Amino acid sequence: MTPPVVSIVAKSGTGKTTLLEKLIAELKQRGYKVGAVKHDAHSFSIDHEGKDSWRLTEAGADTMLITSPEKIAMVKQNRGVEPSLTDTIAEFCGDRDIVLTEGFKRSSMPKIEVHRRARSEKLLCRGEEYDPSLFAVASDSSLELDVPVYDINDAGGLADLIIEKFLT
Amino acid sequence: MTPPVVSIVAKSGTGKTTLLEKLIAELKQRGYKVGAVKHDAHSFSIDHEGKDSWRLTEAGADTMLITSPEKIAMVKQNRGVEPSLTDTIAEFCGDRDIVLTEGFKRSSMPKIEVHRRARSEKLLCRGEEYDPSLFAVASDSSLELDVPVYDINDAGGLADLIIEKFLT
Repeated sequence: MTPPVVSIVAKSGTGKTTLLEKLIAELKQRGYKVGAVKHDAHSFSIDHEGKDSWRLTEAGADTMLITSPEKIAMVKQNRGVEPSLTDTIAEFCGDRDIVLTEGFKRSSMPKIEVHRRARSEKLLCRGEEYDPSLFAVASDSSLELDVPVYDINDAGGLADLIIEKFLT
Repeated sequence: MTPPVVSIVAKSGTGKTTLLEKLIAELKQRGYKVGAVKHDAHSFSIDHEGKDSWRLTEAGADTMLITSPEKIAMVKQNRGVEPSLTDTIAEFCGDRDIVLTEGFKRSSMPKIEVHRRARSEKLLCRGEEYDPSLFAVASDSSLELDVPVYDINDAGGLADLIIEKFLT
């Protein structure tokens, strides 16, 4: 059983992470267990240089885990072969009610696009190509579209929509 | 199928992490896929304040993942209820050949104790209580024991022993 997945997409610099933060907080407040997945095309850094956990990864550990009563952290090497998002969610988020992702704009998962007029007139999902997986837009402008448009700060309204569509 | 697990234990400040680093490198060099697990009794910090991934965790994500072709990182909230080491290894290290752990001295897993005379005359596993799971010692002193004693820097010898006992 894998949880439903909603992807937050946008042209860069539009504020995806800010909306994602607000949506996570909204869904948590309503009692849902939330997974969040961010794609990073480059080599990202996590952990603090010199810490024991960092040293174990640097020494070559294929999987490094730190466990505590509060949380568990993992750094697992893919070594150039990134598993599909579907496999990743099944492996690590199977016990969550919903998963929100950021940065998987080419996937066919249901999408919310974040839009700011100052950044771009056009939408990513209603531009040269029509992306049928778009089901809502969060924008700072009023737009005429074939999907509902929410105010860019209306995380509450978007959370209602996500719950209605995917969690009831 | 869970991989064999070897725990590196010591009194604090004896150099567990240094030996663990060397053992990981030795086992990797011989072609094994290695998992490493560190227990942290306190609230540890991972990730860099202000980064997108950090923000998603702070917003309340129960599971936060960052994926890339190079690696995948996860921060999962336990919220006070830490799963057993056995469950953790089965969940996250099932695809590794061997798992080395640090800091689970009360477990009954096979153990190597790191010892330095200047730190303590006595061993953790041969002190007031006799720990039958001890199968080797890495020490800077010559000791008379019922298990083999290796030089504290002899990661190659200890890797041979681990392979002989658990991987052949």
